Amino acid sequence: MPLDVEEITGAELAPLEHRCTPQTFILYALGVGAGVDPDDLRFCYEGPPGLAALPTFGTVPSLSTALSLLRLRAVDVTPMMLIHGEQHLHILRQPPVPGSLITRSKVKGVFDKGTGALIEVESETRDGSGDIIYTNVLGTFVPGEGGFGGDRGPAAGNEPPDRDPDRVIEMATLPQQALLFRLSGEVSPLLHLEQEHASRAGYEKPILHGICTLGFAGRAILREFCDNDPRRFASVKARFSGHVYPGETLLTEMWDLGGGEIVFRVRTRDRGAVVVSNAVAFVTA
Amino acid sequence: MPLDVEEITGAELAPLEHRCTPQTFILYALGVGAGVDPDDLRFCYEGPPGLAALPTFGTVPSLSTALSLLRLRAVDVTPMMLIHGEQHLHILRQPPVPGSLITRSKVKGVFDKGTGALIEVESETRDGSGDIIYTNVLGTFVPGEGGFGGDRGPAAGNEPPDRDPDRVIEMATLPQQALLFRLSGEVSPLLHLEQEHASRAGYEKPILHGICTLGFAGRAILREFCDNDPRRFASVKARFSGHVYPGETLLTEMWDLGGGEIVFRVRTRDRGAVVVSNAVAFVTA
Repeated sequence: MPLDVEEITGAELAPLEHRCTPQTFILYALGVGAGVDPDDLRFCYEGPPGLAALPTFGTVPSLSTALSLLRLRAVDVTPMMLIHGEQHLHILRQPPVPGSLITRSKVKGVFDKGTGALIEVESETRDGSGDIIYTNVLGTFVPGEGGFGGDRGPAAGNEPPDRDPDRVIEMATLPQQALLFRLSGEVSPLLHLEQEHASRAGYEKPILHGICTLGFAGRAILREFCDNDPRRFASVKARFSGHVYPGETLLTEMWDLGGGEIVFRVRTRDRGAVVVSNAVAFVTA
Repeated sequence: MPLDVEEITGAELAPLEHRCTPQTFILYALGVGAGVDPDDLRFCYEGPPGLAALPTFGTVPSLSTALSLLRLRAVDVTPMMLIHGEQHLHILRQPPVPGSLITRSKVKGVFDKGTGALIEVESETRDGSGDIIYTNVLGTFVPGEGGFGGDRGPAAGNEPPDRDPDRVIEMATLPQQALLFRLSGEVSPLLHLEQEHASRAGYEKPILHGICTLGFAGRAILREFCDNDPRRFASVKARFSGHVYPGETLLTEMWDLGGGEIVFRVRTRDRGAVVVSNAVAFVTA
């Protein structure tokens, strides 16, 4: 079997350093669609009143852990077999702007989803003084590698309540969104840029990165429930349940459950496909 | 007088090094609107068949020379008083991708345009082996500093012939185009990002960099007259005669004069304003 579940579990991945300049944060913000609304300027410009990081920038230091899995002896699969399935980000502090971030990661576990295996990697990202800035759990789905008799893991949860959403925000992605987003992180280009690979996987054309779509949703939550103040955005958890074609318009539907708990979902406006599900953010007053 | 014309002329500016990674070229291409058409992929992706630089990337190494002028003792003006007026780029070789570029610049002359002074800086950009890749002449207009009794300089020329253009290409800029473009070079953010400065200068909102608009026009010429092959694009010269608001749609009107000489002009589609004039590109078969 291409995955040696016993050996993978607990495996440590090589630590990663991210040197973040103002450009790093700006490029990410533009990559997830910021910069159209004048209120976005603080995420896209280092001039007065000063640059801030979008909350979901916190997912960036963990992104290359999916590709790092391929360097483990116990993981004998190709990049095409790895699908970014889930992400869970906690933001403990605002990152230094500019500054360095160090990320240490290890495999938390491998769940047996039947149709595939879900490899969870947990990461801690610290600044130069050792303070934890972000923690992430990144779930990579490996189709066809389930059925090994392992734990299924917890149910996803965070289903929307049975009523209309409290807020719906519409945001357009750009036809060139994937080209722009990928400049922010070490993410596989294959399905996202190459027509041949996308076609082989059954898509009409290259698809947007799920974690990019999550950045759009994060901006919607930040605007609607945090008054655009990133310090009020504590965490976000989501499942990437469908594909987005760059250029599609996204609807982020949000339900305020009280106590700072915002359940949300992202659909493509024209196809109506649910692309981010089982999703929740926690915000503070 | 804030400009000491005698002392400026011939002044050498500090040499500049640009370390160009694939991301450098990709970011520039996205900054001038590439990435929407699948044919653009070779300018936006380092995967097969390999990354190429857009011809007008050649203007990037010269851009910060305008701000370098401010470091000369003989130039006592503020960044707000410097307007990028003209650009003349020759492409002698394709740049190394990736690789380092070294640019040496000096003030070629100062022309007395009556309503202002035009400072021309000429630059040579070489690769690591010393081969010249690009030459540029960048003209900076300083309003109010004319009338010193100097040479007016040559007439701009390159007026379109008195007939309909042979080709017209329409391209939309993005509302966030200036935010994205500026990540490619050291250019003044004031008029281009800050509402307060733009208003004070009489604009409704921040304006796009003229050299970004030239990048859009360069893409139109490359597609229409060079079959998207950057090796066939030899030079481009243009005057920035009007402003573009990010989000406006541009019309590049092109006249083929024969012998590889393409005279062109850029207008905003909805306002009809001429924003790039007195412009010519030379292409090879």
